[in-house]
Amino acid sequence: MIKKGDLFFNKVTIIGVGLIGASFALALKEKGLCKNIIGCGRKENNLRQAKKRRIIDDYTLDVSRSCKDSDLILLSTPVGAFTDIIKLIRGTVKKGAVISDVGSVKGSLVYALESLMPKGVYYIGSHPIAGSDSSGIDDARADLFNNARCIITPTAKSNKKALKTVTSIWEKFGSRVELIDPLKHDEIFGAVSHFPHVVAYAVVNTLESIDSDYIKYAGEGFKDTTRIAMSSPELWRDISLFNRANLLKMIDIFRDNLDEIVRLLEKGDSAGIEKEFSKAQDLRMKIK
Amino acid sequence: MIKKGDLFFNKVTIIGVGLIGASFALALKEKGLCKNIIGCGRKENNLRQAKKRRIIDDYTLDVSRSCKDSDLILLSTPVGAFTDIIKLIRGTVKKGAVISDVGSVKGSLVYALESLMPKGVYYIGSHPIAGSDSSGIDDARADLFNNARCIITPTAKSNKKALKTVTSIWEKFGSRVELIDPLKHDEIFGAVSHFPHVVAYAVVNTLESIDSDYIKYAGEGFKDTTRIAMSSPELWRDISLFNRANLLKMIDIFRDNLDEIVRLLEKGDSAGIEKEFSKAQDLRMKIK
Repeated sequence: MIKKGDLFFNKVTIIGVGLIGASFALALKEKGLCKNIIGCGRKENNLRQAKKRRIIDDYTLDVSRSCKDSDLILLSTPVGAFTDIIKLIRGTVKKGAVISDVGSVKGSLVYALESLMPKGVYYIGSHPIAGSDSSGIDDARADLFNNARCIITPTAKSNKKALKTVTSIWEKFGSRVELIDPLKHDEIFGAVSHFPHVVAYAVVNTLESIDSDYIKYAGEGFKDTTRIAMSSPELWRDISLFNRANLLKMIDIFRDNLDEIVRLLEKGDSAGIEKEFSKAQDLRMKIK
Repeated sequence: MIKKGDLFFNKVTIIGVGLIGASFALALKEKGLCKNIIGCGRKENNLRQAKKRRIIDDYTLDVSRSCKDSDLILLSTPVGAFTDIIKLIRGTVKKGAVISDVGSVKGSLVYALESLMPKGVYYIGSHPIAGSDSSGIDDARADLFNNARCIITPTAKSNKKALKTVTSIWEKFGSRVELIDPLKHDEIFGAVSHFPHVVAYAVVNTLESIDSDYIKYAGEGFKDTTRIAMSSPELWRDISLFNRANLLKMIDIFRDNLDEIVRLLEKGDSAGIEKEFSKAQDLRMKIK
């Protein structure tokens, strides 16, 4: 643990002020970890709202300028924009700055970002397991990360001090921090998050293919199963593409599991179907 | 609407005292619609508990005896047991009795049950859209059906008076009653309920195939998507088998939708993926 007062940033830049970026800003302020927060994004109206609500202190649409003199820069846009942003800010970011992100994919993206860092600027990837289908500042709150898991994905090249800084921020927020290898991260979250998102989107599109009017008969089961299909298509487009190798592998395994149920249904194998369903019930009950 | 006092049963038999059967009993009592409720089932301990909690007035394990002199008989076991139960009670059920059920499948089962009715005994199928992954009496409550949709599935042969009786019961419970053709019912609920259940079971089994330890990283998205995989395997085995023709057709359409996403992922078609996800988001937002 760092000593009290060690963790303080004069200027913080948050690029992408949505649910996670705005909650990060609110948490930094609540914990007294910074003096000044600059928001940056594409939608001026959103940034204006964020400033009005005192989530950020000021904003600019110029990403390069937004990072000048910043001690901490957080990437909280859709992950597909990360490398372009780093290329744009490379010239202005000051030595000693720490750059982190809150993207849902890590893997090779972490190594790509790391290799783009100017000398003396340190990147540490993080992934707070928070938020769900909402994506705007309306649902932002300072305690969003409290008691939530946060995965940090250092590499062999990660700067130890920067790693400690990023870890400490999330710990201050009350997150349960865990360090995981970037590639392992994508396998795990491919399985428990990215793959279920793709399935949820496909389930809703199946209803669309059958008869979209049937949606009025949807009960809690359908609502639960497809809630994450309300998630931002832009965000999940990027995540799916970045983690597509894992995703495609998992969809293959899923098809095998679905085919097994189809086979049992076709055979009318009552005991076999119950066994398949029970296996799922047993595992799912572990996180009841 | 019927006149006050018209709807009253001296003896009601509830076969299968689980979440729905027990809630039906509690609702009947709360609305003052009956004098005496007999529970029947396979698990004496459960029936004893239900009696102790005054959900039912008495119980028996003998299904044939349980229906003697009953004015109203409710089938609330897994749907696979319905025809066997009717065969067992045919000899004891009195003339003028109304038999209904709360099964999640209707379709040809409704016609099968109808054809098994003794002369002067009337069957009307119903399907309250209530409950979710829980299945025991612990979660039973008198207002479970209040404001919930209830589908009633009459046929051309349905007795008009019995239809009015069953409709009136659900209306008294506060349900939003809708009459739907039995085969159409199974197509609709195959799409919005049965098919998502099969998917949820298969998603959990996919995680089991990948690495069941990953479940500890599951966030709200995974939990929502797979909540219904905690549903009773026995109940859903029967539902899946009875509605398998629709289910298999829907799983086929689902596979096409999933294949489309796979194809776009393989191509790296960013705009195409976003479009697929947006289509799903748009439809799902309708029942936000």
